Amino acid sequence: MIPAFIEQDAALVGERLARIYPEGSRTTKVLYDAQKYSLLAGGKRIRPVLVLETCSMLGGDQRVALDYAAAVEMVHTYSLIHDDLPCMDDDDLRRGRPTNHKVFGEDIATLAGDGLVTDAFGVILSCPYASAQSRADAALALSLGAGSFGMVKGQVIDMFGESNELSQDELLELHRGKTGALIEAAVRLGCHAAGLTSDDQRVEVLADYARNIGLAFQVIDDILDCTQSAETLGKSVGSDQKDGKTTFMRFYDVDGARAYAKQLTCDAIASVKTIENSQNLVTLAKYLAQRNY
Amino acid sequence: MIPAFIEQDAALVGERLARIYPEGSRTTKVLYDAQKYSLLAGGKRIRPVLVLETCSMLGGDQRVALDYAAAVEMVHTYSLIHDDLPCMDDDDLRRGRPTNHKVFGEDIATLAGDGLVTDAFGVILSCPYASAQSRADAALALSLGAGSFGMVKGQVIDMFGESNELSQDELLELHRGKTGALIEAAVRLGCHAAGLTSDDQRVEVLADYARNIGLAFQVIDDILDCTQSAETLGKSVGSDQKDGKTTFMRFYDVDGARAYAKQLTCDAIASVKTIENSQNLVTLAKYLAQRNY
Repeated sequence: MIPAFIEQDAALVGERLARIYPEGSRTTKVLYDAQKYSLLAGGKRIRPVLVLETCSMLGGDQRVALDYAAAVEMVHTYSLIHDDLPCMDDDDLRRGRPTNHKVFGEDIATLAGDGLVTDAFGVILSCPYASAQSRADAALALSLGAGSFGMVKGQVIDMFGESNELSQDELLELHRGKTGALIEAAVRLGCHAAGLTSDDQRVEVLADYARNIGLAFQVIDDILDCTQSAETLGKSVGSDQKDGKTTFMRFYDVDGARAYAKQLTCDAIASVKTIENSQNLVTLAKYLAQRNY
Repeated sequence: MIPAFIEQDAALVGERLARIYPEGSRTTKVLYDAQKYSLLAGGKRIRPVLVLETCSMLGGDQRVALDYAAAVEMVHTYSLIHDDLPCMDDDDLRRGRPTNHKVFGEDIATLAGDGLVTDAFGVILSCPYASAQSRADAALALSLGAGSFGMVKGQVIDMFGESNELSQDELLELHRGKTGALIEAAVRLGCHAAGLTSDDQRVEVLADYARNIGLAFQVIDDILDCTQSAETLGKSVGSDQKDGKTTFMRFYDVDGARAYAKQLTCDAIASVKTIENSQNLVTLAKYLAQRNY
């Protein structure tokens, strides 16, 4: 049962995303079609929901939050497109549909992703309702979360783990980068959408919340990947395991992993409850922890 | 004969770029090594020189210009890494050395590029010497120049031209995107480094200068690619022609292309001369037009 506010937020984000790319001319249509194919494929929209709900909790302007939310989803979408490429995870199926490069070719998929991540910054920085300070803070948070010291670093550690045994600290760094950094960035963008600057203590409380739900999310993903069918999951079962990738399940059995995810969720809820009006973020943390695993 | 200010600027930029990426741990070293491999491979550094000289002409803070210049070169470097990938131009040689994916593999090369373009925004947005307005303006100009309506669009048109005959308008749009947009962004970043806002008339005069030298640069590149040896050029001769790519030489013979490049350079010089202290930008336009073709 998806909480109503998540579905409402996701619908708003979908409408905003549908306005990013034009029809295109005969030379450029394939690019914009490829971008829209992955951007409008649905998905849970967890990251943009976090931007919207964080901003809403803090009393900020939802028009700003919607632009920032779209940017985070564009970055998430680019990361999925590139992650699915033959030279990376080589996946054929994503959200129950052929992956981007299967439909548009590797060259266009690469460029569609390149465009998405680059354009995401433009969406933030051209938001007409936000101050220059808010836009600069938000775009910086996105760069730090998505770049070579955040999400990209996580991907590289993930690949390193394919042919090397990772220590538990390295596995944590992998998860914090690959999944956690962009989830943390989403919450930071929500804060900046509401006009909070980086030295506001609530930003760090919320970043802590995000890191915990992000890690829980990845633990649960690993559990699902090892226990669920392709039909339920919309991607190849055990696709992470089959090529020897290091996952969370190398260090925990299923019960242990479930207990760990639960503890992370409790920690997340405890920290966010110190902030007023955080009901929806509490609900979101619980919802993520109750996925079908 | 390279003008002294270009060599001095390029050296400053090289020093700044050398400070972007750390040594890294055993899991991340390969990423930062791959990024440094291409970032510190030399090259003409024309785009960062444009940032520095534009800012200097306008009396701006060179510390700001240096951060913005580094960001533009990071984006240029990412575009070269991805452009060389097997699924794109499939080049083995770049600046006389093996291309990034030949040394580090396609997966790391893809991620090294992804990180470079994402981190570039962070370098601008964390510049401690610039106002939030300057940083937001500069990062927006970089996004617009590099993204799906600028450089990435140019790449897609280029690929479309491999299997379709392009009209001359489409070829111009290709060049304006693939090469021109980032050169124009460089000049805009120089303006924003000096504190000019987008509505300052000088920004448009300089953008016009940039578009003209950018187009001239690409015309000359196409001439060189069709006339020079691999040794002089540091890449495979006729590498653009051999796979049926549309280049400028489909519409012009060598003499015609030279005349066109000369006219573009004259137009560029005429526009930039209307601004005070533009000697170095005039010299730069002349230097670029006198490359060995």
